[in-house]
Amino acid sequence: MTIQSRSTPEVTQGPLPASTKIHVAGTIFPDIRVPMREIALHPSANEPALRVYDASGPYTDPTARIAIDRGLARLREGWIAARGDTETYEGRRVRPEDNGFAEGDRLTPEFPACPTPRRAKNGAVTQLAYARAGIVTAEMEYAAIRENLGRAAARDGEPFGAAIPDFVTPEFVRDEIAAGRAILPANINHPELEPMVIGRNFLVKINANIGNSAVTSSMAEEVEKMVWAIRWGADTVMDLSTGRNIHNIREWIIRNSPVPIGTVPLYQALEKVGGVAEALTWEVYRDTLVEQAEQGVDYFTIHAGLRLHHIPLTVDRVTGIVSRGGSIMAKWCLHHHRESFLYEHFEEICDICRRYDVSFSLGDGLRPGSIADANDAAQFAELETLGELTQIAWAKDCQVMIEGPGHVPMHKIKENMDRQLEVCAEAPFYTLGPLTTDIAPGYDHITSGIGAAMIGWFGTAMLCYVTPKEHLGLPDRDDVKTGVITYKIAAHAADLAKGHPAARLRDDALSRARFEFRWEDQFNLSLDPDTARAFHDQTLPKEAHKVAHFCSMCGPKFCSMRISHDIRAEARSEGMQKMAERYRAGGNLYMPAEPAE
Amino acid sequence: MTIQSRSTPEVTQGPLPASTKIHVAGTIFPDIRVPMREIALHPSANEPALRVYDASGPYTDPTARIAIDRGLARLREGWIAARGDTETYEGRRVRPEDNGFAEGDRLTPEFPACPTPRRAKNGAVTQLAYARAGIVTAEMEYAAIRENLGRAAARDGEPFGAAIPDFVTPEFVRDEIAAGRAILPANINHPELEPMVIGRNFLVKINANIGNSAVTSSMAEEVEKMVWAIRWGADTVMDLSTGRNIHNIREWIIRNSPVPIGTVPLYQALEKVGGVAEALTWEVYRDTLVEQAEQGVDYFTIHAGLRLHHIPLTVDRVTGIVSRGGSIMAKWCLHHHRESFLYEHFEEICDICRRYDVSFSLGDGLRPGSIADANDAAQFAELETLGELTQIAWAKDCQVMIEGPGHVPMHKIKENMDRQLEVCAEAPFYTLGPLTTDIAPGYDHITSGIGAAMIGWFGTAMLCYVTPKEHLGLPDRDDVKTGVITYKIAAHAADLAKGHPAARLRDDALSRARFEFRWEDQFNLSLDPDTARAFHDQTLPKEAHKVAHFCSMCGPKFCSMRISHDIRAEARSEGMQKMAERYRAGGNLYMPAEPAE
Repeated sequence: MTIQSRSTPEVTQGPLPASTKIHVAGTIFPDIRVPMREIALHPSANEPALRVYDASGPYTDPTARIAIDRGLARLREGWIAARGDTETYEGRRVRPEDNGFAEGDRLTPEFPACPTPRRAKNGAVTQLAYARAGIVTAEMEYAAIRENLGRAAARDGEPFGAAIPDFVTPEFVRDEIAAGRAILPANINHPELEPMVIGRNFLVKINANIGNSAVTSSMAEEVEKMVWAIRWGADTVMDLSTGRNIHNIREWIIRNSPVPIGTVPLYQALEKVGGVAEALTWEVYRDTLVEQAEQGVDYFTIHAGLRLHHIPLTVDRVTGIVSRGGSIMAKWCLHHHRESFLYEHFEEICDICRRYDVSFSLGDGLRPGSIADANDAAQFAELETLGELTQIAWAKDCQVMIEGPGHVPMHKIKENMDRQLEVCAEAPFYTLGPLTTDIAPGYDHITSGIGAAMIGWFGTAMLCYVTPKEHLGLPDRDDVKTGVITYKIAAHAADLAKGHPAARLRDDALSRARFEFRWEDQFNLSLDPDTARAFHDQTLPKEAHKVAHFCSMCGPKFCSMRISHDIRAEARSEGMQKMAERYRAGGNLYMPAEPAE
Repeated sequence: MTIQSRSTPEVTQGPLPASTKIHVAGTIFPDIRVPMREIALHPSANEPALRVYDASGPYTDPTARIAIDRGLARLREGWIAARGDTETYEGRRVRPEDNGFAEGDRLTPEFPACPTPRRAKNGAVTQLAYARAGIVTAEMEYAAIRENLGRAAARDGEPFGAAIPDFVTPEFVRDEIAAGRAILPANINHPELEPMVIGRNFLVKINANIGNSAVTSSMAEEVEKMVWAIRWGADTVMDLSTGRNIHNIREWIIRNSPVPIGTVPLYQALEKVGGVAEALTWEVYRDTLVEQAEQGVDYFTIHAGLRLHHIPLTVDRVTGIVSRGGSIMAKWCLHHHRESFLYEHFEEICDICRRYDVSFSLGDGLRPGSIADANDAAQFAELETLGELTQIAWAKDCQVMIEGPGHVPMHKIKENMDRQLEVCAEAPFYTLGPLTTDIAPGYDHITSGIGAAMIGWFGTAMLCYVTPKEHLGLPDRDDVKTGVITYKIAAHAADLAKGHPAARLRDDALSRARFEFRWEDQFNLSLDPDTARAFHDQTLPKEAHKVAHFCSMCGPKFCSMRISHDIRAEARSEGMQKMAERYRAGGNLYMPAEPAE
């Protein structure tokens, strides 16, 4: 957990409590090894280990040898090469402006052995192009296997039109990608990636943001932030760095990341022109796209939906334009009295991205920044443009998801989902929160966790986390963890409510452990075993209490669960049916209740 | 904040930042002084102080002289006496078993001057009885004025059948109580109470639980827990004490509480019979009701809905019976092979409660304790009985609310609300959470905050908080605060979504402060100003940054809000319309966007 020195940086490693990393082989691609986490239960449970989704990468594998100056194993390299449709080439040279002209001590060291970039020989090498051609890629089978952990037969839920299958096949992943309903973000220059899929008919995913800021942070710190976020369950990570050293720090992150990395290329482009929005040009922006695509960024937030004629719609808002990318583009448009260069050059942007398979996250530059501005004309006007851009991207075989708000009161959340599905032809939705009230800075992980759970249920494919520091400051390590756990709760609550066939397995396993007083199992099955154990220890620190048939809240005399066990034992010793008959004979006390519908 | 000694105990006092307590007089009852909090804004805001609901009592009034061994002023005493329908009498004497036979040093001192109890001369002295007789009481006007803070004309929302008026009159409060749709919990022996109303057509309320446990806690600690909980917004407090000294500690709490106090009399009754459920008798229970009614408890949780024939329905549950009261009664019923004495004596219970105006919170002894058990036959069978008991209570002029679950996945929440409204004829619903997943012990304030916000929106009148320690240990001071703030968020999000006419005022005020970089106003308007300020200081500690036109997250270069101001200034200097015309002439760039519906 400590970062020792620049030459031998260390990151958090080791398995979570009672957990083992296992690997499942493919059928179509027998050499793929899909990681999962198995949580062992106490022998008295008489239950197999519980298998859960594992986004944490090799960092939780005690057999993995981690050295962040070497990077992770390039597991997809052979798959990509084998497809024969790409070539390596001498990429763009790093320029001083890529790192904000940082020099000497202020320059983050380059990653020791930057790989040679790869690009399409011609046309698109996207997962969408393959899917449309009927091809199942190794990435698709990998993602399919991950989604399947322990599917159960019993399910109930309200899927709001989602069609989650009982079992996810590689072909199902392919078909969802081909239909545009899912994306599999996987830049060919990020072969360290463990593939995953984002779509309404899969598990709800979450994203965590990291990034250095004006205050210097070393590359090791940023790598550690990423490792820490995925340890607790972040499915993708966005690097929102600004300031100096953006290029070099990103290289360190990507080379060490098993999850898709997203960026907002506009931020780096703005740095290259000295922070002056109106000085931005298409050329600088295009150059940045190529730079980042060669490094292996898996998805780009592109604010091409904010058009000049939308800007007047924001003037009477309570909080104006709150998206950084959106405000930068608005300023550029107004200054030059011109249409957005992102909008005008969107086809060329597609032409770049399809050569590397960089997915789009079409940015909502006009998302509402307050309850007052939710679902207003500006927001929905931009959404229409995002729908238009989706079609352009799809025509170029580019993968697309759509970003969504923001700040939205509960009664206006569903309209966001319904419109997005309609306007963007079911492209995956990727929302920030939404926050359901503005009055609780310091607790916006909670104000937004409420909205995130709901919109996830309604159909959002990925939820961008919000930390307790939102609106106030830079998240520290604890804030990142709190944000990730809160959003894992929201995503899981959404999976449950959608009726995902496997989601309830973990709830049921934990509830059984609770009912049977298997305290260690309760801790180990929880999203944050460390905190659960620590909280229990605060009141009942003794080891003996870990097997106690009561807890600190009620004590033995008031323990409802213990009393339930007594009742159950009594009922079973005689047989509840027989017991009921006897009592009925004696005075009709045990009449069978009408079962509720 | 420190508790110094037994003789001069201290509790947390003083106003919240930038806040002043004001008092509004009545019209029908000109001598009532209804407290509200006004949050002052920076002069640059050009806005009046924001008025918010204030449940914190005299503790936040710097002019109040607090001494917990004297108790709060008995503000309702004259109102009650003036009605002429009650009498004082020599109440029940305190018995050794009331305090668990605690003696000497282990006995919590008695409250110095226990007031003489009061009871109805005959019949009912409940707010329901008055309401049905067409009487507007001082309590009703008091509650009406509290609900009204700054109602605005603009409103939108989805009220799911709730009928929240633009303005709450005393007559509206009376009519809602008369219809059984609201309760005003106000024992005539709790004259220190600042009256408030609980119902679907009023602001959503929250309850915080306190209570000593096996581990000794002094009366001053318990009073401080209550004061701390209401400081952050708890509308009622339940004293769930078990163990010794229950009677004396409760006296200290009630004498110092401006909010309604609820209890579960079964807990004390069980203590009186040595913790052996099957030793409980109607006589011991009845005696406990009288004891607590004389002290001034405002509402009782009564688990009379759990009947013998319901118990077989719980045997195959994953987590059995998780309500303490429910499990105690189930054990009693099974042991004696008899119908619940609470059910059989429910009319007599009503006859006691109507003499003091103790409201009922009909307990859900069979609430689900896991996602797996949600909405099952046991739960809904008991709900039917609660509906039956509601009618009995109403026939006796007793006020009633109904307790609800528990653990419920999102897609099953609304059914709980819909059934409760139907089965219990719109009596107010009072739910614990519900928790929307079981897999996050340590974070159950969040798993349940999601469910609480939703069910509050759907129509629940009061939300019982859950702290981060739920399922794990005893909440400390920080946990209580986190639980209360989380539930204030849920209740407020629900008010917003229901379209409460005044709810958005605070969101809008805070959002304007945010957009105008009035940092101090942002902190002061938030639910927890201390935390918001502390978080901001962690990244930008300097005083100068409190007026900075940017924040730590983006820095000046990337500040979307700052850019928005530039855009707005530009637009306003020329006039957006004119600007648009000019651009349209130059190339149709500024065409008016179709306003979204």
